[in-house]
Amino acid sequence: MSTTAPKGFSAAGVAAGLKSSGDLDVAVVLNHGPDDAAAAVFTTNRFPAAPVLWSRQVLAGERARAVVLNSGGANACTGPEGFQDTHATAEHAAAALGIGAIDVAVASTGLIGVRLPMDKLTAGVTAAVEALSEDGGPDAARAIMTTDSVPKTTVQQREGWCVGGMAKGAGMLAPSLATMLVVLTTDAVVPPELLRSALKTATSVSFERVDSDGCLSTNDTVLVMASGASGMTPSAGEFTDALTAAATDLAMQLLADAEGSTKDIAITVRNAAGVDDALTAGRACARNNLLKTALFGNDPNWGRVLAAIGTTDAAFEADQVDVTINGVTVCRGGAIGDPREGVDLTGRAITIDVDLKAGSEQATIWTNDLSIAYVHENSAYST
Amino acid sequence: MSTTAPKGFSAAGVAAGLKSSGDLDVAVVLNHGPDDAAAAVFTTNRFPAAPVLWSRQVLAGERARAVVLNSGGANACTGPEGFQDTHATAEHAAAALGIGAIDVAVASTGLIGVRLPMDKLTAGVTAAVEALSEDGGPDAARAIMTTDSVPKTTVQQREGWCVGGMAKGAGMLAPSLATMLVVLTTDAVVPPELLRSALKTATSVSFERVDSDGCLSTNDTVLVMASGASGMTPSAGEFTDALTAAATDLAMQLLADAEGSTKDIAITVRNAAGVDDALTAGRACARNNLLKTALFGNDPNWGRVLAAIGTTDAAFEADQVDVTINGVTVCRGGAIGDPREGVDLTGRAITIDVDLKAGSEQATIWTNDLSIAYVHENSAYST
Repeated sequence: MSTTAPKGFSAAGVAAGLKSSGDLDVAVVLNHGPDDAAAAVFTTNRFPAAPVLWSRQVLAGERARAVVLNSGGANACTGPEGFQDTHATAEHAAAALGIGAIDVAVASTGLIGVRLPMDKLTAGVTAAVEALSEDGGPDAARAIMTTDSVPKTTVQQREGWCVGGMAKGAGMLAPSLATMLVVLTTDAVVPPELLRSALKTATSVSFERVDSDGCLSTNDTVLVMASGASGMTPSAGEFTDALTAAATDLAMQLLADAEGSTKDIAITVRNAAGVDDALTAGRACARNNLLKTALFGNDPNWGRVLAAIGTTDAAFEADQVDVTINGVTVCRGGAIGDPREGVDLTGRAITIDVDLKAGSEQATIWTNDLSIAYVHENSAYST
Repeated sequence: MSTTAPKGFSAAGVAAGLKSSGDLDVAVVLNHGPDDAAAAVFTTNRFPAAPVLWSRQVLAGERARAVVLNSGGANACTGPEGFQDTHATAEHAAAALGIGAIDVAVASTGLIGVRLPMDKLTAGVTAAVEALSEDGGPDAARAIMTTDSVPKTTVQQREGWCVGGMAKGAGMLAPSLATMLVVLTTDAVVPPELLRSALKTATSVSFERVDSDGCLSTNDTVLVMASGASGMTPSAGEFTDALTAAATDLAMQLLADAEGSTKDIAITVRNAAGVDDALTAGRACARNNLLKTALFGNDPNWGRVLAAIGTTDAAFEADQVDVTINGVTVCRGGAIGDPREGVDLTGRAITIDVDLKAGSEQATIWTNDLSIAYVHENSAYST
């Protein structure tokens, strides 16, 4: 049921003609209240898209009543005209919903550097508002897909309340924030400050640790809205746990559907001097094209793991580091370990454990392999 | 004539059976003097290969008489045993040459994490020493090839003296140092301190600005030896210019032969607040897989240029940046510029000019596209 699993929300997804395929491409999610607390996290890219600039203003008040989302165009790097397009979209939706434009967040995804066809988009928003329903969550999730092969949704049910959500994202998956649009909803009673801190916690250990291709998008948006319609008030810990579970579920779905990927790779760096060191070393591996192509080729090339972490400033001694791939410690003390022939990489799931022996902290970064299909898909994307 | 173009040098390349193909795989370059000044730059990877550890000791004295090079195995991440192998190689060569082992640098290239077959290697060194000749430069250049499709050599002729050189490297091309082995020779009279400073200058604007795939190797070595055999003493400026010309010529050959590449891409960042900002922004583009795949697909996707530099801390205002691809200013002021249809990307050479409008410094980074052949070659490399 996606974003409409929690009480107090309706949603819709319609085909407005933004996608040449004729698939659903405009979504609206509406919070019916009684509460309208909201929080969001946006891309840190210094070329934020017009909808990011707009939605930052909306969320500054820590409330939102609705979000309009479209695929088929990112409305990024489109200048003042692009911002006016986003503003007009919010105004149009607000008029149709009978609320203020400042209560309407906007999110867009698709090609950068192209204006949106506003006639089609506004007609789509009108149709989506008319189609709003308590069963509309799945359609909304389909309408935000770009190169995604499947919609991504989640529901985390708790005693008398729940968290729902949808996500899109299959490329440009990198921190901070996997490139994506995510809408999370809850019918719990959650004050704005808790919503904000819980979202920060949830994204930091989920979306921010997915690094599929090292590319940071201009449009990343993670939005959470709380309706309070259940009348239930979970503790801060309970709510944060549920939101984190929802975010992690969606992040793993993004990873599994990453463009052209054939492997889901969990890189865990153990016994680091600090979490930052563990993340730095893990990201260096996740962004090493030679390692990623080797894993695509089912080659447990641990030398490329060392070469990758050898470029970082993480604390370690070169003659201390162990590397274990799918359970086989192929590198011990920075040198040759157990025979690489013992490593079975034929499955989709790969675990790489790096033991730095420099402390007691650890972290996991999730990434994908670099495949021929990735190159093919991304070389042909805009043509 | 490669490394034997300058007077006072002999070289050889032989097939020792390290490569399963039977191609040349062991090289020796000998400096007959009268001078034996030498300088080198090594990888900054924190897992330096055994030959790098050894050669650093050799070069600490700012002199060297010979260098032994092998392909077919990097001798990296091989522990103390690997270091003993390198040491034994130097001892073996020194005995055959009648010099001290501390005068013999060693460089290796090939797969990481595998011990070298020392019986084959030492027999190869013996054969190479016996084959040393003033015409041996080209054979030596062929013997250090791995996935290179052609040998890379250069000669920079000056009045009465010259600089010669050879290079290998087709993957793991990233700073600082493109991944590679490079031997430069000169018959000029050059004191060690000038040799060192000239090499630093030459590499900083050549090899260190080639960033083919963002991967830093464990074995990078650039070695220069001066025989003084011409009796000519160029000025510091003259020598630095010639060495820089040789290094730049070799760097462009590395770029042109990068694994699987179909494009040579020069990314020039102009009007930056400083050279560091220009390099940071240029490297961010050079390492952006989405941009590199787009260029492989002949797609002038300027949005991915902005998305890449938007992840850096270089000084710029988002609404000021222009991007020109092959002469067409497709992005003006961070927004849509001239029609992308006007960009012709069918040739191998691509220029991307980014105007940050934040200062007056500039720098160029050279990179390649990310092709299906790159993935294929690197997924199959060790198998």
